[in-house]
Amino acid sequence: MNTKTASNKPEGDYTSEDYFFPQELELAFRNRGIPAEGLRFPVTPTGMHYLLNHFDIPEVDSLNWQLKVHGHVNNEVSIDLENIRSRPSVTMPVTMECAGNGRAFMKPRPINQPWIHGAVSTAEWTGTPLRHVLEEAGIKDDAVEVLFTGIDFGTQSGEEQFYQRSLRLADAMKDEVILVYEMNGAPLEPQHGYPLRLVVPGWYGMTNVKWLDRIEVLTEPFNGMQMQFYREVSGDGDEGTAIETMKVRALMAPPGISDFPSLKRIVEKGNVELIGRAWAGLHSIARVEVSADNGANWSDAVLDDPIGDYAWRGWRFDWSATPGKHMLCVRATDSAGNVQPDEHTWSLYGVANNGVARIEVEVK
Amino acid sequence: MNTKTASNKPEGDYTSEDYFFPQELELAFRNRGIPAEGLRFPVTPTGMHYLLNHFDIPEVDSLNWQLKVHGHVNNEVSIDLENIRSRPSVTMPVTMECAGNGRAFMKPRPINQPWIHGAVSTAEWTGTPLRHVLEEAGIKDDAVEVLFTGIDFGTQSGEEQFYQRSLRLADAMKDEVILVYEMNGAPLEPQHGYPLRLVVPGWYGMTNVKWLDRIEVLTEPFNGMQMQFYREVSGDGDEGTAIETMKVRALMAPPGISDFPSLKRIVEKGNVELIGRAWAGLHSIARVEVSADNGANWSDAVLDDPIGDYAWRGWRFDWSATPGKHMLCVRATDSAGNVQPDEHTWSLYGVANNGVARIEVEVK
Repeated sequence: MNTKTASNKPEGDYTSEDYFFPQELELAFRNRGIPAEGLRFPVTPTGMHYLLNHFDIPEVDSLNWQLKVHGHVNNEVSIDLENIRSRPSVTMPVTMECAGNGRAFMKPRPINQPWIHGAVSTAEWTGTPLRHVLEEAGIKDDAVEVLFTGIDFGTQSGEEQFYQRSLRLADAMKDEVILVYEMNGAPLEPQHGYPLRLVVPGWYGMTNVKWLDRIEVLTEPFNGMQMQFYREVSGDGDEGTAIETMKVRALMAPPGISDFPSLKRIVEKGNVELIGRAWAGLHSIARVEVSADNGANWSDAVLDDPIGDYAWRGWRFDWSATPGKHMLCVRATDSAGNVQPDEHTWSLYGVANNGVARIEVEVK
Repeated sequence: MNTKTASNKPEGDYTSEDYFFPQELELAFRNRGIPAEGLRFPVTPTGMHYLLNHFDIPEVDSLNWQLKVHGHVNNEVSIDLENIRSRPSVTMPVTMECAGNGRAFMKPRPINQPWIHGAVSTAEWTGTPLRHVLEEAGIKDDAVEVLFTGIDFGTQSGEEQFYQRSLRLADAMKDEVILVYEMNGAPLEPQHGYPLRLVVPGWYGMTNVKWLDRIEVLTEPFNGMQMQFYREVSGDGDEGTAIETMKVRALMAPPGISDFPSLKRIVEKGNVELIGRAWAGLHSIARVEVSADNGANWSDAVLDDPIGDYAWRGWRFDWSATPGKHMLCVRATDSAGNVQPDEHTWSLYGVANNGVARIEVEVK
């Protein structure tokens, strides 16, 4: 063992709650976030898009692949990729956020994908409406849910499983729900669900099942493992509430320049345009406010024109930066009047947090 | 403060050396690694390719962008993207590895990008030979180096800087060194250096300057910050040795399935084909060996056909998996007879490690 001291030890004191485990680091490398400056792009470049895969990314031979539609339907159907691609298509920007975004701020925190703020991105998705495929199969009376099964396979909570999530029938039949084969104008890359994935605008990321293998119409609600985990639970023994659509949230592209490897931000004094994005599930964004003094005072930002019904909305704010350290904050309010809380809300699995984001900058 | 205990706390004891700082987690999210199963692809999908950016990813308006070639030349030239794209082009698979790959295993470790094993990938790069561009500018006598300056700007070690690295003239003039505008058949994404980057096959990643702004021919060696950091240094006060081409190394795509979120590997007993990739800078791969008992016994793997002079080489090995825990290892030997050491070699900045990779699996 070499006993020399390492250079560049970060300043400040940490408690054990402020450290991260090797397993969390490994999760962070597998499942990347959008780099903060990536918020400058209204549509996230494919390779910058955040990623959360529970199990190994499968390699799919699309020539031998077919989507099966079965269960409580009149006609079971199998559809190949060529057929899917020949159907009426829609392309739209959709913002997707992982339900665990912000989990790293939980104290104590569950050991799971330790997201800071980067688990959100927007892509232009191209696909065909799910509704038409379901109608073609003919949904029988008494159907209540639609179950989506991916090809990705692994274990979680001791159970071997394909990744599976369901939607209520009424949600699955919405016009905007699409079976997607292209992302930003190119075929899906393997890690984003090639050859076909589900995109359900407005819902948290776990809904958008990748590597679709089959779609089953059910007469009973599905209660598989991936339905049980994605719940806001106040503690052991609490059944909690299923999380569905994304809560209101805003983020800021950090101003100025970055120091490597400390990632501290340095800003020149004077006029600085702060920019960022805000989103709110199926609601629209009503207001974005900025604070340069850690939330003591707030001022309204200007909203950019919307880029789509299901995509984040840009905002900008002219800040007169004075020398010294400043804690920049941004918070959004949605069209239903929901406003982000000052702090992340603790829950057992660390999901559906939308506390105000803070960026410390030093103005010189 | 909520005092409930978090679920899923990893087993085992950790010392402070085994924890990671929030800053390291942030670096891991910004600069992603290839997911281990991504080693199954001979050419890494763009969005799976590892990434190491020191400073913010710049947004470049390619219409107003020009590459400047200046310094100790007969004719300073400025070349726009259309011109670059109209020149003779080459496309080739090139394996790139960050010099810091494996840094997380250093004890004590420098606080910097805390790579585990994922800082290596292979893409098909398309570009035009640098040599022609330099010849067109006309290199004067007494030139010794060529300096590459990126548009990316930030601070490191207290110095404001554009990212800059140089090559000896003889290395810059090699046929395989290219100015790249496409990755895997599409224009470079912003995070990979759009609109133009350098690719120097065989060298560690820091050499491949992204977002090229200018190329300067020098009569003295360049000794900027990015030349000083990428050195193998045994401790404070040691000047160390510049690192250049990649050392021999092999990695394995983990067999079996993964547990989420522990990332433990579970393998079914019986015949298992282990596969992976090996590379060695400007050398070729002579041999790959596999051990299923933490290095006590080694057996030769079979090498796949090469996919290019500057790309990693696939290998495969038939393993008869018996129930229980196994520590799988792989090590490579290059054409110059260099073999990977059993352990990572400590150095002050944690660069150029190529210790044997280990994957623990449980066979059921």
